Amino acid sequence: MSKKPLIVVTNDDGITAPGIQTLIQVVKTITDRIIVVAPDKPQSGMGHAITINAMIRVKKVDMDGVEAYSCSGTPVDCVKIATSKIAKETPDLIVSGINHGSNSSINVIYSGTMSAALEGAIEGIPSIGFSLDDTSIDADFSATPPYIKEVIDYVLKNDLGKSCCLNVNFPAVDSELIKGLKVGRQANAMWEETFDERHDPSGDPYYWLTGKFVNHEEESEDTDEWALKHNYVSLVPVQFDVTAHHLLDDLKNLEHEEKSR
Amino acid sequence: MSKKPLIVVTNDDGITAPGIQTLIQVVKTITDRIIVVAPDKPQSGMGHAITINAMIRVKKVDMDGVEAYSCSGTPVDCVKIATSKIAKETPDLIVSGINHGSNSSINVIYSGTMSAALEGAIEGIPSIGFSLDDTSIDADFSATPPYIKEVIDYVLKNDLGKSCCLNVNFPAVDSELIKGLKVGRQANAMWEETFDERHDPSGDPYYWLTGKFVNHEEESEDTDEWALKHNYVSLVPVQFDVTAHHLLDDLKNLEHEEKSR
Repeated sequence: MSKKPLIVVTNDDGITAPGIQTLIQVVKTITDRIIVVAPDKPQSGMGHAITINAMIRVKKVDMDGVEAYSCSGTPVDCVKIATSKIAKETPDLIVSGINHGSNSSINVIYSGTMSAALEGAIEGIPSIGFSLDDTSIDADFSATPPYIKEVIDYVLKNDLGKSCCLNVNFPAVDSELIKGLKVGRQANAMWEETFDERHDPSGDPYYWLTGKFVNHEEESEDTDEWALKHNYVSLVPVQFDVTAHHLLDDLKNLEHEEKSR
Repeated sequence: MSKKPLIVVTNDDGITAPGIQTLIQVVKTITDRIIVVAPDKPQSGMGHAITINAMIRVKKVDMDGVEAYSCSGTPVDCVKIATSKIAKETPDLIVSGINHGSNSSINVIYSGTMSAALEGAIEGIPSIGFSLDDTSIDADFSATPPYIKEVIDYVLKNDLGKSCCLNVNFPAVDSELIKGLKVGRQANAMWEETFDERHDPSGDPYYWLTGKFVNHEEESEDTDEWALKHNYVSLVPVQFDVTAHHLLDDLKNLEHEEKSR
């Protein structure tokens, strides 16, 4: 590309989160053509939610010389409005994060950060989600910039294919403890949920979601969980085709033309 | 199984929607062990959203002899609370729907109905989402019961594998026009969004999401969109591993140990 790339930045922790500030600083070293559209409040756990029965507000905000907007919608709404309403041309890249909390393994499904990246991929725009394995508001993002720049440079130069994006997760350790970058697959892990039951002053019950993370394949070295646990930056390519292609043949038993029923 | 199957029923249109009533009537012909947990308000487009920063209310409701609860959470919350808090044993099946509106192709990603089914699969429980290609409140579900029963019977007898669920979509046509059932893959289609910009009485802008559905592969006969368009009931197996396995080798170029940087 002749001119500098146009990069859209979003997240799910909200426009004031420290994680997105770090990401913007890295993007500034690559281009001066930046559009930030991020939620006006935390939207963690929103998955691929979109706003279809309510209006969306978009407000220009002051952000140190960068064109930036806060948006009342979900992370996916932010991407949609950035690409279809705010950007005057198709962005060269969408980056989402840095999330306060890991989005490895099954978390990719629940994550607003990764859904924003996936929405970019659905729209045919190269996209990357970045997350740090530390949910605290004062998480230390200082080890992340060189890796973020490296991955962004790679994606700007190499075609991921139109239906894919990248899920990059950082271990929450000091820079000198990071062992490198490892490419892998989504681990087969899940949250074993329990609900904490409490009672309000009227005696009626209410519930808080709690849960324990369980990795069903601790020993598999080709997964994102293994990489993170062993202090590697994890990178997983992600696609939006969720067809279980391996089942198509078996299920043909269910097929029939109506006259044969 | 010796006793009748325990089936959990949920949806994303809310517990009072006509679609879930049809689904419950079909399930009643299969078993008398039924638990309904559905949102207390419409939750369309919620994707795989979960409620992590708010409490959840669950309220027992009267539903013609069936054990039923309305839940203030998302469709995924409903599944989590049904399996971990309400059911005394692991359900044999989770069914979600019948959605008022198709969840074929890319809609599987945005759909609360399908996210509920996928959540079941994540928990290792056979799960099916059903949707009718008609978003209206008075949609005609009368053609769906024999197919629903057929697919449920199949899933109760055949192992889908622990990480998969089924996405079943009905064309919105009279029973006698349905040509049969076709197994296929998720079509490569998308919504081309536009936002309708309006101004409030103070002159400030707000936006409504609108969009046009575009199928990038109209001619491919092995997709869910083709099946629906040609009056077949469409069935797509769906998985929660979103790793783009075909990209893993290429991306190895990005891998490195830290000492080599």
